[in-house]
Amino acid sequence: MARANANTQGRVSGELFTLTYGSLVAQLIKDYEEPSEVNKQLEKMGHNIGMRLIDDFLAHEPVEKCQEFRETADVVAKLGFKRFLGITPIVNNWSEDGKSCSLILEENPLVTFVELPEEQSELQFSNIICGVIRGALEVIQMRVEVSFVKDALKGDDVTELRLTLLELLVDEPPPGDD
Amino acid sequence: MARANANTQGRVSGELFTLTYGSLVAQLIKDYEEPSEVNKQLEKMGHNIGMRLIDDFLAHEPVEKCQEFRETADVVAKLGFKRFLGITPIVNNWSEDGKSCSLILEENPLVTFVELPEEQSELQFSNIICGVIRGALEVIQMRVEVSFVKDALKGDDVTELRLTLLELLVDEPPPGDD
Repeated sequence: MARANANTQGRVSGELFTLTYGSLVAQLIKDYEEPSEVNKQLEKMGHNIGMRLIDDFLAHEPVEKCQEFRETADVVAKLGFKRFLGITPIVNNWSEDGKSCSLILEENPLVTFVELPEEQSELQFSNIICGVIRGALEVIQMRVEVSFVKDALKGDDVTELRLTLLELLVDEPPPGDD
Repeated sequence: MARANANTQGRVSGELFTLTYGSLVAQLIKDYEEPSEVNKQLEKMGHNIGMRLIDDFLAHEPVEKCQEFRETADVVAKLGFKRFLGITPIVNNWSEDGKSCSLILEENPLVTFVELPEEQSELQFSNIICGVIRGALEVIQMRVEVSFVKDALKGDDVTELRLTLLELLVDEPPPGDD
């Protein structure tokens, strides 16, 4: 159904985006009932979206290939989040091996109008973000795991995503191409 | 689940919005199958969104109460579309009674990445827009009908919405308030 288009689009209002995203989440809650299943679907949709956004990102942002995962995390936060959501998370809490860090979102445009009802306490409302990051980095050969460890929507002081590099993927040559 | 918030949000990328909206439409197609039902659901979601966006709109745009429907249509096109989608449709084809006009969209950010497959020829992909206009104007006491009469996504030269004023609603005083 979808096809890449060379047009660079303008920007749309955060309110419209937030309410449209809210409609999507509400529809998935209606469809799947189980919050864990809604979380999974949101992540999956995000993965598809991330695989598309990375092309747009690489076409418009002046980035070199990152040598280390630390640089990648910085680019995700400072250029990726900025470009697509207009926010810049803080990157911190690096693991000693440099493969795992936190992205701290002081604000989250996805939840501006949202209050979670009690029965939805298992819902990861913004889980699409995890999928977007996973999908985008997969295209550039990094298998990562992304999840929410804190969520201001649930009363935490900030929203914190944990980003972990699992594997650097290696291009396989196509079969018979030798 | 949702609550108004005084924060004015920034803007988000058109690409992210378009892909998120595409996910919503795809989910509805999966859920309802019948394109006519998907159209209806999109319009309904738009109606809810429009009822919320109008508050944001009135809080931030310097508009006076419109005296005539012609002014209203101009405000929808020149301020509403501009604010939320970053485009400015042309208003034309007025009916003689001044109650019906066309909004011509030379570009439509909702469909940038979209190609309709043949079996979806009845789908009004962007029908959420009709609902948003209907919902927003209902809050300011105008009952309108909005529908797509041309759609570039289906091969038409432009995308054309037809906007018709059906009724000016009158505030009913609450029962017993006399």
